[in-house]
Amino acid sequence: MSRDAADARIDAGRLWQDLMAMAEIGATPGGGCGRIALTESDRQARDLFVSWATDAGLTVRVDGIGNIFARRAGSDPEAPPVLAGSHLDTQPLGGRFDGVYGVLAALEVLRALDDHGVETRAPLDAVVWTDEEGCRFAAGMVASGVFAGKLKLNDALRLADPDGVTIADALRNIGYAGTAPVGGHPVAAYFEAHIEQGPVLEAEGKTIGVVLGAQSRRTCRVSVAGEEGHAGTLPMERRKDALVGAARMVVALNGLAFTYEPRPVITVGDLRVRPNSRNTVPGGCVFLIDARHPEDAMLDRIEAAIRRACEEIAAASGLGIAIEGLSRSDASRFDDRCVATVRRAAERLGLPHRDIHSGAGHDACNLALAAPTGMIFVPCEKGISHNETENAKPDDLAAGANVLLQAMAEWAG
Amino acid sequence: MSRDAADARIDAGRLWQDLMAMAEIGATPGGGCGRIALTESDRQARDLFVSWATDAGLTVRVDGIGNIFARRAGSDPEAPPVLAGSHLDTQPLGGRFDGVYGVLAALEVLRALDDHGVETRAPLDAVVWTDEEGCRFAAGMVASGVFAGKLKLNDALRLADPDGVTIADALRNIGYAGTAPVGGHPVAAYFEAHIEQGPVLEAEGKTIGVVLGAQSRRTCRVSVAGEEGHAGTLPMERRKDALVGAARMVVALNGLAFTYEPRPVITVGDLRVRPNSRNTVPGGCVFLIDARHPEDAMLDRIEAAIRRACEEIAAASGLGIAIEGLSRSDASRFDDRCVATVRRAAERLGLPHRDIHSGAGHDACNLALAAPTGMIFVPCEKGISHNETENAKPDDLAAGANVLLQAMAEWAG
Repeated sequence: MSRDAADARIDAGRLWQDLMAMAEIGATPGGGCGRIALTESDRQARDLFVSWATDAGLTVRVDGIGNIFARRAGSDPEAPPVLAGSHLDTQPLGGRFDGVYGVLAALEVLRALDDHGVETRAPLDAVVWTDEEGCRFAAGMVASGVFAGKLKLNDALRLADPDGVTIADALRNIGYAGTAPVGGHPVAAYFEAHIEQGPVLEAEGKTIGVVLGAQSRRTCRVSVAGEEGHAGTLPMERRKDALVGAARMVVALNGLAFTYEPRPVITVGDLRVRPNSRNTVPGGCVFLIDARHPEDAMLDRIEAAIRRACEEIAAASGLGIAIEGLSRSDASRFDDRCVATVRRAAERLGLPHRDIHSGAGHDACNLALAAPTGMIFVPCEKGISHNETENAKPDDLAAGANVLLQAMAEWAG
Repeated sequence: MSRDAADARIDAGRLWQDLMAMAEIGATPGGGCGRIALTESDRQARDLFVSWATDAGLTVRVDGIGNIFARRAGSDPEAPPVLAGSHLDTQPLGGRFDGVYGVLAALEVLRALDDHGVETRAPLDAVVWTDEEGCRFAAGMVASGVFAGKLKLNDALRLADPDGVTIADALRNIGYAGTAPVGGHPVAAYFEAHIEQGPVLEAEGKTIGVVLGAQSRRTCRVSVAGEEGHAGTLPMERRKDALVGAARMVVALNGLAFTYEPRPVITVGDLRVRPNSRNTVPGGCVFLIDARHPEDAMLDRIEAAIRRACEEIAAASGLGIAIEGLSRSDASRFDDRCVATVRRAAERLGLPHRDIHSGAGHDACNLALAAPTGMIFVPCEKGISHNETENAKPDDLAAGANVLLQAMAEWAG
């Protein structure tokens, strides 16, 4: 007779040990990891995961785009599996937790259920998605995109790195060109545990972020045209100073962000002045706007307000303006039942939690297109990620894995 | 018996012809001039000036720093001379009028007085000052500075260009290492005619700018320190966005300029963002402020207000700030009598005029330290200068030369 999953707990020490062992593969001098997708270090990381999975009695399958599925059988072999995972690849100077935590937390959940003698109806898969970061083959989240039916397998396999090596080549080179079909079968649910990559949970003392979805995002380029002039001789009232106009826009866009609820993030991260000489009134200024919000329709309205604000400032300042849309990606909204599962699990475990939107994209955003999906965030130090100094606390990582365990068990029956 | 200088007029056609002939020396493809100080093209320009001066019966002297004096004798050989001139060197991609106009207008004044049979008590010198632009030997207005006693001759002669060629070497190379003492003798007055290098006269339909002096100038560097963050995950209320802070400062400084009378010019011409990546909240921003005003004391107060404004914005935005003074040059105030002379001459000639401050520095600013000094501005097209497209109207140039004639004649008695 199966024991109750509600009493099962993951082994926090083993999870931390695994994370630190994995961090040695592709370790960087600054204390982080550089494991670019489908390189030798990615192969080593995959091999280590597979060896751990095999040791744990799991059945390992690799699909046609290199995604790895380590399965713990259920009592009903016909039941669609519950999946959990993330990615093992990192940024060139990435951290020890981004991605790898979600993979190893899933593995640890499957081990912990064994340890506690818990049997589930549906099978459980700990998954490694190929190339989430997108540092090498231009686009990120490719393999989960193929799994979810968003991308065609052959198109993905043909993507090449700057040396002309395709994903298909690279998979063969490291021995992970699998034979299992990519997706195309029912999935009961997908859960992904991840560090927040932002500062909210740490600042508010919350251990668990119940992720509602990933934000909608728009980027655009604003070109402000003024007139150059001599800084000593051109009177203030005759100037068409492109930088002063652009500065008014930067301030206005920042203020605009605070007028919506829920609040978007609006960032001008890249701004260039022409000719950028101390003795010359700026004749031109070009800057990029990155705007994100949980809801597409709201972000459409915010984007319209951004454009209007810039155009009004340009007109009032006698400046020319051109605004060019650069990219647009719609929001992911996770399944209400999966979100509720995560929230309930955090409550049952007595963990401080809050609802949160993911600022960044994750494989879960693709999976949400194909299956009920939820995500679990845990705090990371100062919100720093994509950085060698990325850090997280063992207790928080264990707490997130315990929430993952409860969520998977609930959906697996 | 001498005829009345009040009836003398310069030959506008001859002045224009001379300007266009001089513009062929070092002519650039874009229609401007590139005559860097003490180069072969500067030598050719000097030679042409000397030949014209000799043809006009003037006595040519060259001093120890290459300044050229073409003298028309007065009836009293003991009387201190009245000087007028400017420079023949240009920016690398300079125009046809900046400097050369003041030299050729002075030459034309001396010829016109001959043509009209006007005799003056004091001698009159048409002067070419060496290296006003400062493109080659690092500091501009060097030779007029030595003449006025502001710089030591030997220090000036030792200044070297990037190839290690000193001013002394370069003077010898082009045959203009003269033997006359540099300054050290009384000067009755100095006048300089120049294009405005700004848009005020043209915009207001004034032919003559009665120059009151040159502005006081301060430059400083502002470094704003915030904190980098992920543009997608760092909530607005937790940001320390260095660019938003800097943008507030740029807007505030622009507004500040409009609160003083007379109005300063305050320019942020150079601004750089760190790391300047669209996906990252800016962690740093460094910009340069150039502030100018006719009065030193007022500019001191304005500079203090600039610093206060930046510091207050930084404090209110939770940003770090460092402000570093880079340069400071005090105002030149021209001699009241010389200024009145110029104004009166414009009035007598029926020329629309206005008082004006020079935004840029001129040799006259140095001469003002040693002798009663005045300047005459004429309009230039759209205020554009230090540019191959620099342009001015023959009638305006002639009008300025006629004012110069009246001013020189008045002071020469």
